[in-house]
Amino acid sequence: MGRKKDTPLSAKSSALVLSTSEAPYADTGVRKTVLPGGLRVVTEHVPGVRSASIGVWVGVGSRDEGASVAGAAHFLEHLLFKATPTRSALDIAQAMDAVGGELNAFTAKEQTCYYAHVLDEDLPMAVDLVTDVVLNGLCRAEDVDVERQVVLEEICMRDDDPEDMVGDAFLTALFGDHPIGRPVIGSVESIETMAASKLRSFHQRRYRPDRMVVAVAGNIEHEHTVELVHRAFANRLDPIREPAPRREGKFRPRSEPELIRMYRESEQAHLVFGTRAFGRHEGEKRWPLSVLNTVLGGGLSSRLFQRIREERGLAYSVYSSVDTFADTGAFSVYIGCQPENLGKVASLARGVLEEVAADGITDAECARAKGSLRGGLVLGLEDSGSRMNRIGRSELSYGNHRSVSETLARIDEVTTDEVSRIATQLLSRPTAVSVAGPYRRTRDLPAVVRRLVD
Amino acid sequence: MGRKKDTPLSAKSSALVLSTSEAPYADTGVRKTVLPGGLRVVTEHVPGVRSASIGVWVGVGSRDEGASVAGAAHFLEHLLFKATPTRSALDIAQAMDAVGGELNAFTAKEQTCYYAHVLDEDLPMAVDLVTDVVLNGLCRAEDVDVERQVVLEEICMRDDDPEDMVGDAFLTALFGDHPIGRPVIGSVESIETMAASKLRSFHQRRYRPDRMVVAVAGNIEHEHTVELVHRAFANRLDPIREPAPRREGKFRPRSEPELIRMYRESEQAHLVFGTRAFGRHEGEKRWPLSVLNTVLGGGLSSRLFQRIREERGLAYSVYSSVDTFADTGAFSVYIGCQPENLGKVASLARGVLEEVAADGITDAECARAKGSLRGGLVLGLEDSGSRMNRIGRSELSYGNHRSVSETLARIDEVTTDEVSRIATQLLSRPTAVSVAGPYRRTRDLPAVVRRLVD
Repeated sequence: MGRKKDTPLSAKSSALVLSTSEAPYADTGVRKTVLPGGLRVVTEHVPGVRSASIGVWVGVGSRDEGASVAGAAHFLEHLLFKATPTRSALDIAQAMDAVGGELNAFTAKEQTCYYAHVLDEDLPMAVDLVTDVVLNGLCRAEDVDVERQVVLEEICMRDDDPEDMVGDAFLTALFGDHPIGRPVIGSVESIETMAASKLRSFHQRRYRPDRMVVAVAGNIEHEHTVELVHRAFANRLDPIREPAPRREGKFRPRSEPELIRMYRESEQAHLVFGTRAFGRHEGEKRWPLSVLNTVLGGGLSSRLFQRIREERGLAYSVYSSVDTFADTGAFSVYIGCQPENLGKVASLARGVLEEVAADGITDAECARAKGSLRGGLVLGLEDSGSRMNRIGRSELSYGNHRSVSETLARIDEVTTDEVSRIATQLLSRPTAVSVAGPYRRTRDLPAVVRRLVD
Repeated sequence: MGRKKDTPLSAKSSALVLSTSEAPYADTGVRKTVLPGGLRVVTEHVPGVRSASIGVWVGVGSRDEGASVAGAAHFLEHLLFKATPTRSALDIAQAMDAVGGELNAFTAKEQTCYYAHVLDEDLPMAVDLVTDVVLNGLCRAEDVDVERQVVLEEICMRDDDPEDMVGDAFLTALFGDHPIGRPVIGSVESIETMAASKLRSFHQRRYRPDRMVVAVAGNIEHEHTVELVHRAFANRLDPIREPAPRREGKFRPRSEPELIRMYRESEQAHLVFGTRAFGRHEGEKRWPLSVLNTVLGGGLSSRLFQRIREERGLAYSVYSSVDTFADTGAFSVYIGCQPENLGKVASLARGVLEEVAADGITDAECARAKGSLRGGLVLGLEDSGSRMNRIGRSELSYGNHRSVSETLARIDEVTTDEVSRIATQLLSRPTAVSVAGPYRRTRDLPAVVRRLVD
């Protein structure tokens, strides 16, 4: 893994002046070429499919924004689709619709990804189109004003989706005013005042090829793909640059976890609570934490699902989840239930976590969770889109690639004790809470919910 | 297609006394065996995957319920997972979680499907487990009371999701008290009073093997799969039965389309409006209607998306869709927007539909929409789950199977004129409307929304 060797260019691409290095990751099927400008191209051939997915991953997200331009990364992601020097928004949409492909993008706290999923024969068009949007998307003032309304609509939509809303609020409750704690989408205030010039400068300063990874998976061939990408980036590649280092970060908390209450006349109360967890580079904790998450709230046989839904019928939706950033993370539990049951449900959920913090998990639970992660991993990697996601994310976050069998072996190594230790460590940390429902004042919340933060 | 011939059993299954007929659909890759009891088994080998999906499709849905037991089909689908004579709910959940598989079910107006997605090596377990749930799931009174709470939570959750809520209400506005118009989930009243005995008798009377299709796709082999299914159904197969005929129906409207308004203090107004469309067996209209739907609101380049979102920024989410039942259907438009823009948005959307009803679509739009449907079809059939869905649904609805290339050829044949004619026909029909938002009285709605039903 990570071996690098010089690779001769294919005959077809020899007219291009590339300075490439290639790490073939022979046992993974992942191949990597670094183009001038530090632009990384990673590909994976997926047997048996007729499709291809391309993603341009930019190592920039809402975490990189100042508070006054909160939501800029996501706003920009919308805006770039509005026009390039050679294409209108309608041209962009028509080109992709005409071949039945999917064109979209998402913005997260630490990265932004522009992607397309097409038939293999349409890959050249997709590479050209996605690259044009990412590199050449214009930030015209008139488009900013139209798209501002769309983003404001998206905020309203988020606010009408209680599960989404408490999810965003939970990270704010957990990380406070730290950039990790701010919603990717921004706030009504920051969006209403966002200037085109700010977006333009965000684009120019941050969207550099050395911070980008182009990931392509499907029925594709590495050298040909590299050629397509090189042609699409053309004169935007500055030969003296190396790939930017992976994001490390050094999380410095600015505040303690707290409780955020949102008043809504909703039918259900929606509760998220949890603690800070581990950063991406605390690699040895990744799989034990995944096992813990699976045992607590990862599936139908998990303790939370059984205790709250199966045995008592107190919720339809109950699960736990893990968020991972470069230098910190979050472990949380979500439950939606009728408001009169919120106290009982919160108490049951807290009880489940306390039991595991005190007594650990059982060997049978550990074995089952490992089986669940193994099966889920393999089942989740059969299509081009998920493969593209895996290699793009891996290159940007780690700068290297593990084969599926290496990952399976790592899962196998997890021990019950390791998981139990992590449970004790994690679940003794301070708890953040976000809750939405018919609670006008904090004291209207059940006492057990208020006490979760103590 | 549809040819039947006697097929010798494989050596391995010769110990089982089968009376099979097989239609190999050689050009589709779909194979079919009818077992005693009229149980149909359809399979498709999907090259390149390591997974398998199995679905037991039952030709029974909410349409088959009397009004007093509205929601029974869906309630039963929940209940059967609670226990079988040999497995508890926890056993069922643990068996699937241990291999990382997915186990779930859904209920629709005309069918119910229980399915699992697993690694190929786990197919025997999955067949056994899903079949046990479907055939032997118990309807114990104590489980009914717990699961009643879960279904009531699910209703609350639906009511907190305005897009979901207006979607259900739209079909009620369109079909009135006809069974097609009633929500699959039932009502708070019908669920609160649902008796275990009603569910038990619904199960016993309706879940007969001659109304079922077992669909399996992935890295599987037909004869072996048939053997697994035969073994799992064991003595439940009554040799004298033939497969039940496909559902034809004969839609008799009981009322005219109307407007349903739901008061919500939501951030956005949520609007669905549309008309009755075509039944499944009006086959010649299927693809022209799909082309029309694509042109109007099927993708980024569609007229509705361009007019309302791209050009004016008045909505984040705007699209059209088609529902198809045996003997009727629906065409509808959804838009979520800020309440102060609802009048403008409704007026723009109505304008788009009126234009197309009057002037038809262009050749360029027709060509692009056909490309979009072609690409979408091929891209959407790469995994075991979507293949299983396609063949299960096809067998239950039509009793036969088209190859992908036949379907592509049918799409190619659609003409601009055909689509324009369907547009004129459809969009002159009476319109139903459902709307949720801060509107306490019908007269608080913008006039243009009220007039949509005229």
